[in-house]
Amino acid sequence: MSKATFQPIRKEVSSAPIQMRALVLTDHGAAVIDNYPVPVPPSGEALLRLRVAGICATDIEMTRGYKGRFRGVLGHEFVADVVAASAAPEWVGRRVVGEINVGCGHCRLCTGGLGKHCVHRTSLGIIGRNGAFSEYFTLPIANLHEVPVHLADEQAVFVEPLAAALEILEQIRLGPTQRVYLVGDGRLGLLIALVLASTECRLTVIGRHAEKLAWIASVTGAATLLAGSDEVAALANEPADVVVEVTGSGAGFSTALALVRPMGTLVLKSTFAGTLDGFNISDLVVREITVIGSRCGPFDKALAFLPAVDLVPMVHDRFRLTDGVQALERATAKGVLKVLLTP
Amino acid sequence: MSKATFQPIRKEVSSAPIQMRALVLTDHGAAVIDNYPVPVPPSGEALLRLRVAGICATDIEMTRGYKGRFRGVLGHEFVADVVAASAAPEWVGRRVVGEINVGCGHCRLCTGGLGKHCVHRTSLGIIGRNGAFSEYFTLPIANLHEVPVHLADEQAVFVEPLAAALEILEQIRLGPTQRVYLVGDGRLGLLIALVLASTECRLTVIGRHAEKLAWIASVTGAATLLAGSDEVAALANEPADVVVEVTGSGAGFSTALALVRPMGTLVLKSTFAGTLDGFNISDLVVREITVIGSRCGPFDKALAFLPAVDLVPMVHDRFRLTDGVQALERATAKGVLKVLLTP
Repeated sequence: MSKATFQPIRKEVSSAPIQMRALVLTDHGAAVIDNYPVPVPPSGEALLRLRVAGICATDIEMTRGYKGRFRGVLGHEFVADVVAASAAPEWVGRRVVGEINVGCGHCRLCTGGLGKHCVHRTSLGIIGRNGAFSEYFTLPIANLHEVPVHLADEQAVFVEPLAAALEILEQIRLGPTQRVYLVGDGRLGLLIALVLASTECRLTVIGRHAEKLAWIASVTGAATLLAGSDEVAALANEPADVVVEVTGSGAGFSTALALVRPMGTLVLKSTFAGTLDGFNISDLVVREITVIGSRCGPFDKALAFLPAVDLVPMVHDRFRLTDGVQALERATAKGVLKVLLTP
Repeated sequence: MSKATFQPIRKEVSSAPIQMRALVLTDHGAAVIDNYPVPVPPSGEALLRLRVAGICATDIEMTRGYKGRFRGVLGHEFVADVVAASAAPEWVGRRVVGEINVGCGHCRLCTGGLGKHCVHRTSLGIIGRNGAFSEYFTLPIANLHEVPVHLADEQAVFVEPLAAALEILEQIRLGPTQRVYLVGDGRLGLLIALVLASTECRLTVIGRHAEKLAWIASVTGAATLLAGSDEVAALANEPADVVVEVTGSGAGFSTALALVRPMGTLVLKSTFAGTLDGFNISDLVVREITVIGSRCGPFDKALAFLPAVDLVPMVHDRFRLTDGVQALERATAKGVLKVLLTP
């Protein structure tokens, strides 16, 4: 489809260096490599220059073996400038965020609009495609969304996880009559809390960090409870219509399942390495529970949602790429929310 | 609510004996007891005299430890005559089937119309309430449905499992555009095949018994495949919009999950003793699968559905209660479908 030939070579392309700095997952763990090759965008793709990237739980899980086959540049939450886009040069100079999945374009899922689930897909910094924790990287132009001028980089960098949070509202209908429990107060958990609260449902957030819970209560008005408290144990007597699980661990699944009322819905947002043992399937059947797996979501809706919330309080630290390994470590520390990387 | 006092004692009541024959789950397994006490119906309940009962996989699972606390008369699929109903004497003499769950009537679930999920419920022959494999038993009058005169006992005895099959259509919408795989060709599986086929979806039934598959193909026109065949392995390349799992084993869950397309739905109909190890929750999340537990269903719709199908070919054997232990054994034999019990 692209008309890549006979395009004039743009100044931006020629100014890109040959080598760059990148935070790479190697056979020996994450490492900063200073002479990583700058990618050449394939036909239909743009060359992007990183402005800011966010570290996500998935990045950390990957350093622990989740999606174990991946080796390469990590990172999938970013804001970048388009420096080359031969198939659509009007994109050059735009500030963008980008959807992370790239389908094959030909299979039944891709042609049916489910390209994010294409079994042959690559996924930025996750499956078969170098990610955003580097000075330059590439994505198809079709994956890009321009960031409105009024949105700061440190807000826009939340588009990808916020879209994942908003995916819940693509899957189920929520409103003021529903009792909803959110289990998990990590990075994604707090974004989900903001999204759930926007539906005016009767929300209780269950987490492990008093200060995060205090923040989410102040921003959303949601009730909050500390995991392991007597109050949480008592919730089993008042099970919820909908429970959202985002603890990032197998143990959270059982906790969450016990809090769903019969014929209620459990939404799963955690991905992690490892499997769950002792899963009682019959409990799902007898109580007629619906379990919904939920992953990437709508970027357009996330961009529309962002101006209504101030996410900068969730930025707990900022690192340069050269200190990327320390940044990953920092992101694993208890209570730390979003850690950002800049070139 | 009932006006039990000052009702004339009806001939039918006085004719009920004090002792009866019953197939009872004891600490030492299933046993026929000839001098089991005839129950006295509590207020609001009817005394029922068994006409015919059906043996279900759940009965067999219970003899193996599923719902391990239950001791008492087994059985929950039945057709019976009402012999006493002091709160509503107009029911006496009617031929009935009955919903098996009895809620407390007071909790939020019961008052909200979800009494079948009341945590304090009893369930005929399953939880805290003697079942139907006996000459007499009781159920609340509110649980009873009169059997239309043109329906034979051996059709009407399928109302309870057929209602469970129809519950799927209460939970998801199916139609001609959808590809549906049904995994399992046991008793409940074949009823589900009839129900799914009635939606005109593109149905493939995967089972272990060539002759059952041949029957369901002849009745419904569905495609059929033998489990373990190369054709079934190839189905993973053509995953279904909806997969219904009714193998009655944990192994079936993984097989079924692998056959669901991304963003598709897996309906679980199996209850069994034991848990599943090595469950990969992240697979549900990444592929955004919806898993729906599905149990008891609408009796009224089952009674309306029955005249359209001939289920008598599914009756593979008939026993008297006195041979109840052999009947249970017969029902576990490979390839055997419905085994009936009469007094």
